[in-house]
Amino acid sequence: MDRQRIIKEMAKLVGVEYVISDPTELKVYEADGLTIYKATPELVVLPLTTEEVAAVVRCCARERIPFVPRGAGTGLSGGALALEGGVVIGLNRMQRVLEVDYANQRAVIEPGLINLWLTNQVSPRGYYYAPDPASQSACSLGGNVAENSGGPHCLKYGVTTNHVLGLEVVLASGEVVHLGGYAVDPPGYDLTGAFVGSEGTFGIVTAITVRLLKRPEAVKAMLLVFENIPDASAAVSGIIAAGIVPAAIEMMDRLSIEAVEKGTHAGYPTDAGAILLVELDGPIAEVEALLAPIESVGRAHQMREIRVARDEAERLRLWKGRKAAFAAMGQISPEYYVQDGVIPRTQLLKILTEIEALSQAHGLRVANVFHAGDGNLHPLILYDSRIEGQVRQAEEMGAEIMKACIAVGGSITGEHGVGLEKRDFMPLMYGPADLAAMERLKAVWNPDGLLNPGKIFPTAKTCVEVGSAAAKGIDPRYGIQGF
Amino acid sequence: MDRQRIIKEMAKLVGVEYVISDPTELKVYEADGLTIYKATPELVVLPLTTEEVAAVVRCCARERIPFVPRGAGTGLSGGALALEGGVVIGLNRMQRVLEVDYANQRAVIEPGLINLWLTNQVSPRGYYYAPDPASQSACSLGGNVAENSGGPHCLKYGVTTNHVLGLEVVLASGEVVHLGGYAVDPPGYDLTGAFVGSEGTFGIVTAITVRLLKRPEAVKAMLLVFENIPDASAAVSGIIAAGIVPAAIEMMDRLSIEAVEKGTHAGYPTDAGAILLVELDGPIAEVEALLAPIESVGRAHQMREIRVARDEAERLRLWKGRKAAFAAMGQISPEYYVQDGVIPRTQLLKILTEIEALSQAHGLRVANVFHAGDGNLHPLILYDSRIEGQVRQAEEMGAEIMKACIAVGGSITGEHGVGLEKRDFMPLMYGPADLAAMERLKAVWNPDGLLNPGKIFPTAKTCVEVGSAAAKGIDPRYGIQGF
Repeated sequence: MDRQRIIKEMAKLVGVEYVISDPTELKVYEADGLTIYKATPELVVLPLTTEEVAAVVRCCARERIPFVPRGAGTGLSGGALALEGGVVIGLNRMQRVLEVDYANQRAVIEPGLINLWLTNQVSPRGYYYAPDPASQSACSLGGNVAENSGGPHCLKYGVTTNHVLGLEVVLASGEVVHLGGYAVDPPGYDLTGAFVGSEGTFGIVTAITVRLLKRPEAVKAMLLVFENIPDASAAVSGIIAAGIVPAAIEMMDRLSIEAVEKGTHAGYPTDAGAILLVELDGPIAEVEALLAPIESVGRAHQMREIRVARDEAERLRLWKGRKAAFAAMGQISPEYYVQDGVIPRTQLLKILTEIEALSQAHGLRVANVFHAGDGNLHPLILYDSRIEGQVRQAEEMGAEIMKACIAVGGSITGEHGVGLEKRDFMPLMYGPADLAAMERLKAVWNPDGLLNPGKIFPTAKTCVEVGSAAAKGIDPRYGIQGF
Repeated sequence: MDRQRIIKEMAKLVGVEYVISDPTELKVYEADGLTIYKATPELVVLPLTTEEVAAVVRCCARERIPFVPRGAGTGLSGGALALEGGVVIGLNRMQRVLEVDYANQRAVIEPGLINLWLTNQVSPRGYYYAPDPASQSACSLGGNVAENSGGPHCLKYGVTTNHVLGLEVVLASGEVVHLGGYAVDPPGYDLTGAFVGSEGTFGIVTAITVRLLKRPEAVKAMLLVFENIPDASAAVSGIIAAGIVPAAIEMMDRLSIEAVEKGTHAGYPTDAGAILLVELDGPIAEVEALLAPIESVGRAHQMREIRVARDEAERLRLWKGRKAAFAAMGQISPEYYVQDGVIPRTQLLKILTEIEALSQAHGLRVANVFHAGDGNLHPLILYDSRIEGQVRQAEEMGAEIMKACIAVGGSITGEHGVGLEKRDFMPLMYGPADLAAMERLKAVWNPDGLLNPGKIFPTAKTCVEVGSAAAKGIDPRYGIQGF
């Protein structure tokens, strides 16, 4: 096949300045937020409209070139990697807010729009978009749809799928379809729900209808300080058991606090064993009334101190520490490998104890900063790739954490997706018939397997340049090849 | 094919007393809650376990006999009708609660369990299952999953799909698969979401993992009385615009009030033009604090009176009128045809005005009793099938209401499903590519079309015994035939 001919055709479709073919520039697209795996595309194309996306896809389909949609590239499971080479379709230029309907609390936006920008745009009128990944100032809403992203406030408000009402999608054939709509429960199959979280293997989303929420009357954040993780874990269960659903309950352990305080100075107590960041929102009366019950649950579990943010500035400072936690890991480790396990909330203490034991056994430190309220863990395995064998060690330990989550009735991903990283764990959770059902579904949307190949399901025909091709049983002969 | 042989085989699979083949007994299964259409199955089989369901399905698949799952038969879109004859697989015997995990707020139940029984079982411990169709004392949870049922409290808590975490499903091939799980966002495709609302065309659900909620500390119901529909409609918008999300906002018009008061004596004011039944729930402080704002929104829209239920008995009495409203229509009309349109909340007044005009034009009375908070209308078209042409007239008027809903950006079903009733309206909402995408999905799960044929999508190859075969363009040559 003729690479130059394809480049020319793509340039005609989207404009020559929006086709990236220079090897150095292509390197930017070799990884997403999970830098442990790398795979460089042969071409990156940046369309501006649905029609351009459809035309690019039709070209790829005709030429049988693999293609991979990509938003802001902040994903944490390698979902946007071009594992078989081919074309990355970058959606960053598609970031318009197409429509805002305040009365019906709906907005229609393009996939490249940054999550926080939507809230920024509607907040002067008192509205916001609820799902708030920690990366919300950088990640795109199209990416959120692909991964069904969560965030601290998803405890109370639900994850991305609960806020997406309709989608415009370019299928693998280049056809444009509309799924769902403006209504809460549109007729026919819930294809919107199936698309949300399909990690770019069903089609490319080009417009998203989302629900907007009215800002609550009051928001109150507080820090609950504990001597150790068992007490903090028991307090999480205690709050929920009391029938209280805070907007968020985030937990951070001592190592996370240390990293954050070195990085951003949020004012967390560095001598604490664990902290909970709890936020209440709703009518003023509700928020005020729930402060005392939360404090008394804390006291019942040896809480050392409670700090209720007195004003919005203090509240934002408390959150700043949490939101910057991943980035702050650089203060205490050259690299980290973040896991994304889910467990039934009652198993919190058990799993944290097991992670600590695994940390000791592997000789790798683990920092925990996570959505405790919904049992969504984020153990950050700290490693240094310059030390022989540590990458492999971190990966193995990550796998053991996943298995431990499954063993207590949990799951291998809460919000980061399966992508490349966890595809080999899928058989640990699902039987052959279950996986076959999913693969049949994939085959409907993606009959030639050109759309985002090598993701979600175990497969041999993929390649990663660094990382653990061998550990994952990947055949290194499949390389990044020309068209 | 040999009918007797099939009956014998089924009897061996589920027990002879659970195979219904007598024509008189089969008549019980000729319709669901939408009695305007009828189609009698050739056989009804009542399995007790997943294995029995799978064996029955395998037999049907091998013999190429159409088969239709059925729960309690309360559906309102003809979804459980055996349009091509064949076997109805009744799931009423599968009504066990398999597991209740209070700490993690999960229950695993069988599909034949009646919605309210689940709440009854867990309420001594302070929990409940949130989605509450008006028929909750009769409808089954499996049917709720099939139709993605809503209910008054779904305004605040979301519909069935928001409360279903995992499913055990028997596929059309007889294979058993497990979708989703215990976790909020399991890895892989959200097949649970696609199955919920697939109206029995993807498989037969044999076990359901649902979320349980903790009973709110306080619940307060109140009746807001208005002179007319415009004022009541404006008050609905006003409440939501104030940032208040009540647990429910139900509206009833004068004709509905009349029917209810003749039937159940809920104490509604029969001279009112419209009433709103508003319920608040949550912490006591929140509920108390929201009473005044709701009252003042009402006053701003000429509310004549507000009655806040003083105790649980009074609250239940207020709800009893609403919940019995459909049944009470018998007091004022021999038959009714209920519609299930959805509109953006801001279009409430516009659509109610149009419905009133249609009512005048067709000379058929319409009673409105519906979920005003989420814009889910239920116009009840009153008719008398003994009067020549009224069935047809009611159907035509129903179609015009659906078109009016679509015209203001709404949808043809909120919670009752497409089923048989609305399949011909699907092209009004979706383009050919959109419908083809759905049909492709159906073909994956239902490759031979044996599973619940003739539902959701327009098709000629179906038959209904009474009602409007001609109006729907159904070829009456396709009859209910022997195997």
